[in-house]
Amino acid sequence: MNIAYQMPTKVIVGEGCVHANAASIAGMGSNALIVTGARSAKINGSQDDVIAVLTNNAQSYAIYDKVMSNPTIECAYDGAAFAKAQGCDFVIAIGGGSPMDAAKAIAMLARQEIPESELFSGQYSEDVLPMVHIPTTAGTGSEVTQYAILTNHAAQTKMSLASPLLFPKIALLDARYMSTLSLNDTVNTAIDALSHAVEGMLTVRANLITDILAAEAIKNIAFCIGALKQSAVTPDIREKLLYASMLGGMVIANTGTTVVHAMGYPLTYFKDIDHGRANGLLMAAFFDFLQKRVPEKVSEILSLMGFLSVEAFKSTMNELMGEKEKVTDEEFIKFSETVIKAKNVGNTIIAPSKNDIINMYAASF
Amino acid sequence: MNIAYQMPTKVIVGEGCVHANAASIAGMGSNALIVTGARSAKINGSQDDVIAVLTNNAQSYAIYDKVMSNPTIECAYDGAAFAKAQGCDFVIAIGGGSPMDAAKAIAMLARQEIPESELFSGQYSEDVLPMVHIPTTAGTGSEVTQYAILTNHAAQTKMSLASPLLFPKIALLDARYMSTLSLNDTVNTAIDALSHAVEGMLTVRANLITDILAAEAIKNIAFCIGALKQSAVTPDIREKLLYASMLGGMVIANTGTTVVHAMGYPLTYFKDIDHGRANGLLMAAFFDFLQKRVPEKVSEILSLMGFLSVEAFKSTMNELMGEKEKVTDEEFIKFSETVIKAKNVGNTIIAPSKNDIINMYAASF
Repeated sequence: MNIAYQMPTKVIVGEGCVHANAASIAGMGSNALIVTGARSAKINGSQDDVIAVLTNNAQSYAIYDKVMSNPTIECAYDGAAFAKAQGCDFVIAIGGGSPMDAAKAIAMLARQEIPESELFSGQYSEDVLPMVHIPTTAGTGSEVTQYAILTNHAAQTKMSLASPLLFPKIALLDARYMSTLSLNDTVNTAIDALSHAVEGMLTVRANLITDILAAEAIKNIAFCIGALKQSAVTPDIREKLLYASMLGGMVIANTGTTVVHAMGYPLTYFKDIDHGRANGLLMAAFFDFLQKRVPEKVSEILSLMGFLSVEAFKSTMNELMGEKEKVTDEEFIKFSETVIKAKNVGNTIIAPSKNDIINMYAASF
Repeated sequence: MNIAYQMPTKVIVGEGCVHANAASIAGMGSNALIVTGARSAKINGSQDDVIAVLTNNAQSYAIYDKVMSNPTIECAYDGAAFAKAQGCDFVIAIGGGSPMDAAKAIAMLARQEIPESELFSGQYSEDVLPMVHIPTTAGTGSEVTQYAILTNHAAQTKMSLASPLLFPKIALLDARYMSTLSLNDTVNTAIDALSHAVEGMLTVRANLITDILAAEAIKNIAFCIGALKQSAVTPDIREKLLYASMLGGMVIANTGTTVVHAMGYPLTYFKDIDHGRANGLLMAAFFDFLQKRVPEKVSEILSLMGFLSVEAFKSTMNELMGEKEKVTDEEFIKFSETVIKAKNVGNTIIAPSKNDIINMYAASF
């Protein structure tokens, strides 16, 4: 038995949990930096709830709402400069993966001078603004991970800033904040969560604890697939997805991801394919690749979802995701050059070769 | 859905994990206080491993090995005075629940002046020596909880010091350290772990996450019962018990315990019945009490263990625990006076009355 497991983030799930945990927010500091995107937190009620709690707690705050989709390194430095100028002593991130990831980098850069060349070095001092994370999508699980994925235009890919210092102190999950999410975003983020749980089970770092969390996530997401296909996204379905997404985050915080994530990044960077969708498009080919090598693992995962074969899984995923984007063979070859260098390739239970990667791309499109 | 869950302790399970995590120990401080009992850590190899790592790390240390079974409040103050005198800046606890619980109180009292009258108030400053915990029994799960159970001779019972500040930073679990444990201690501690997982599922604070951890613990312990009955405790069985015990700790860290623990304490205090055994003796009567009120919960737990009825569970437990101690009706009535005031009575999924408590005692002996 070999287990290495940590989850320092305290998680609270439930309707009204932001208000119910006002005292915890009061204990975080005196001047909050709210990190969010331009729009959704203002529409779904989350920002109002946070501001009401801060006001009631007599805590001041400043809002940095310039986080774009797939946030850049520049955005992190910009947000950190704003935090310093405003004298903020803690961070509240509200949104999907983009604001939550940006918030982590901002929380660190607001307290440490780190040149861009050292940003992904993993060598940081312990001084990071404490964070509360409030997810408003159910996919990334970033509220319980130590990762901040930033887009690096120089390297033409996404890069992962990772440190145990980046775990939020508290994650507050209220599924009502997802009620304004489009069906398309709901599906894509659900697939992202699914890929975290599935990939976590297929890493070299998977262990007994991450496997039971992953299994619980997969079962919950599988339960929701029918509703997603029928556009019948009830509050109960939203809550199950949010719960599963958090579990997926707990998994990858400990296991990391696989070649699927590595392959997905160029699809997002160069073809503008949503992150969760990109992973979803690749997953069946990944199962096919693994089936000859670790058939029992693939069967275990398929059976958690109620599928008897990769084909059955593929057909459901195709139905869920609709028409696929066009990607050329030349693009696959180009992408594979970057992918093969990614750390998550070696983290995969069976590490694929560059050829395997090209074949998985080709089989997926 | 309502979940409140935290587990700030990083857990490492595996043969040789103390040596493998020498770097983590090096990061804890420069002068360790080793808190342990008089004997077992010296016999089972754990203390040697710790000292080898500290020496190799050029960390100094002092050994406080005066922790008795069911450690007293006096022991905690005595250990703290020793830690201060030695200038220790972190704590390594080695042993069963007694050294681990004492170590938590010592880690706090070494940094804070808390009069005995305030010791159980829950109001502490954040200054606590950081801790590494190395369990050498598989029962308490104390390596992943915020509880320190101390014997209070003035109140003639055990009392629980509880604070998130008392979570160890790291728990290192190597089942080899249990190889010298007697069969009797192995059985009693396994029952303690079982009671944590079972009781956790039967509290008002049980949630989806604690339930999946509890289910995993219960299944693992049930798997080991046959081996325990046959005195066939292999290294694999020891490791499963250690893993399950840790899961039980993760559960009660979030759920707390039930009336079973409250009823067990006087049996330990006045009748000198081992803590795990005391809970085990009471568990069937607790199931019987609940069966009329929450039958589905009781069935779920029994079925995780592979039992079809409370009777079947009772008969296996009787076989495992052997002849019962004698306790009189007068004693039950006296004990129930203390028990009914305990916080874990109200934490039970169905809170029993004083009469229910007396009846459960009577049915158990």
